[in-house]
Amino acid sequence: MNYRLLLQYDGTDFHGWQIQDGLRTVQGELTRVLTLLDTREVAVHGSGRTDAGVHAEGQVASCVLERDIAPDKLRAAINGNLPRDVRVLFVDEAHDDFHARYSAISKTYKYRVVHSKTMSPFRTRYALQESRPLDLDYMRSCARLFPGEHDWKAFSAAQSDAESRVRTVLRCDIDDRWDAVGRCHLIEFTVSANGFLRYMVRSIVGTLLAAGRGEISCESIAQAIKDGDRGKAGATAAAHGLTLKSVKYD
Amino acid sequence: MNYRLLLQYDGTDFHGWQIQDGLRTVQGELTRVLTLLDTREVAVHGSGRTDAGVHAEGQVASCVLERDIAPDKLRAAINGNLPRDVRVLFVDEAHDDFHARYSAISKTYKYRVVHSKTMSPFRTRYALQESRPLDLDYMRSCARLFPGEHDWKAFSAAQSDAESRVRTVLRCDIDDRWDAVGRCHLIEFTVSANGFLRYMVRSIVGTLLAAGRGEISCESIAQAIKDGDRGKAGATAAAHGLTLKSVKYD
Repeated sequence: MNYRLLLQYDGTDFHGWQIQDGLRTVQGELTRVLTLLDTREVAVHGSGRTDAGVHAEGQVASCVLERDIAPDKLRAAINGNLPRDVRVLFVDEAHDDFHARYSAISKTYKYRVVHSKTMSPFRTRYALQESRPLDLDYMRSCARLFPGEHDWKAFSAAQSDAESRVRTVLRCDIDDRWDAVGRCHLIEFTVSANGFLRYMVRSIVGTLLAAGRGEISCESIAQAIKDGDRGKAGATAAAHGLTLKSVKYD
Repeated sequence: MNYRLLLQYDGTDFHGWQIQDGLRTVQGELTRVLTLLDTREVAVHGSGRTDAGVHAEGQVASCVLERDIAPDKLRAAINGNLPRDVRVLFVDEAHDDFHARYSAISKTYKYRVVHSKTMSPFRTRYALQESRPLDLDYMRSCARLFPGEHDWKAFSAAQSDAESRVRTVLRCDIDDRWDAVGRCHLIEFTVSANGFLRYMVRSIVGTLLAAGRGEISCESIAQAIKDGDRGKAGATAAAHGLTLKSVKYD
């Protein structure tokens, strides 16, 4: 039976999604637990990798099990064997051809920034702190440059030119509000695309924050998007502010 | 100079507020840091103790320093020396007769419950999990019994009868909503009073949860409030769901 899993994890204490020998990873934990529950080694596929320190509120994974287990029982059995910083919220049976990675149409990430001179203990694991002034209106003007189909060379980790870096950004929004729990001004970046390159969201956010501080202009960002010049983009924002919010399927 | 401090802390890794030899406490950390910054041992007064595992989004403390330090500088200097699970959000100069505990008029606590079969990793430190069905309407009817001036014997830790247990509960509300981050049904209890006995909020919440599960009736709760019979109240809810939300002063 092919199963689809909806997952959340606090990425703070994980070396990212992807299974790696000797390191604590989300895929590693899930593989261990599912192999325990099934009759053979189970392959767990995620919608995509998340880097070390990145969180997920809505990661999706799929796996084929030999045993036929009712979804609710499977969820409870998995959670009973997982550490508490990763949880399966929902399990259902999927069509044979469903694959968490290849069937995904788009993904949405959130990047959170506490805009304050002090960092709330309730936000420190999940948000970056920025204490300098930010021109949010200007940042929003720059954010409007991102939606569209482009080669995202300037906004990703170095990689072989052989692989396509063309992706379509569907949404790049900046919301801000008073956070009553953290008692701080909270800025949330929402970026959706049909696919992401490594460090792409963090690089977009780092660039928009630099624009907000007056260090990079909208024109420079437009050039970076057009000609792929990394020198015109900003630094990569820290991993712990990033959360995979949701994955969209047909 | 007399200073007033607004504090937040994640209580997970603290043995509560009160300074204790050899244990990691919030008052202990603050005393260490303030004594470092001043010219002599500093006494830090909190609005009240919080127990081990209990959080604070708005604890208030006061202290008299020999040195005269600008409030913003003092805040930065304290935070620079504190671990990241406790933070001073705001400092101001207070009148000589201000005392965080004796000047307090009332306090408000929140108690959070994730009402779901699975516990989000983003809520597990700050909320209790309840997976059984709850009759929220009935719980709200029972909650209306609490506001008023009573001897709260049935809803507190055992203590000497010599001390007054009479307090006025000003508010006891139950809100529930969909929590988009934890992807779960979240129930929030808000309890305000002019003062609290030890375990009082956790005991009220434990009782209301028992009422929601059909284990205790409104009538039994009314009796417990009236005659102080602990046998008619419910169990004390776990510490980690409790947060000191705010303290009110004149």
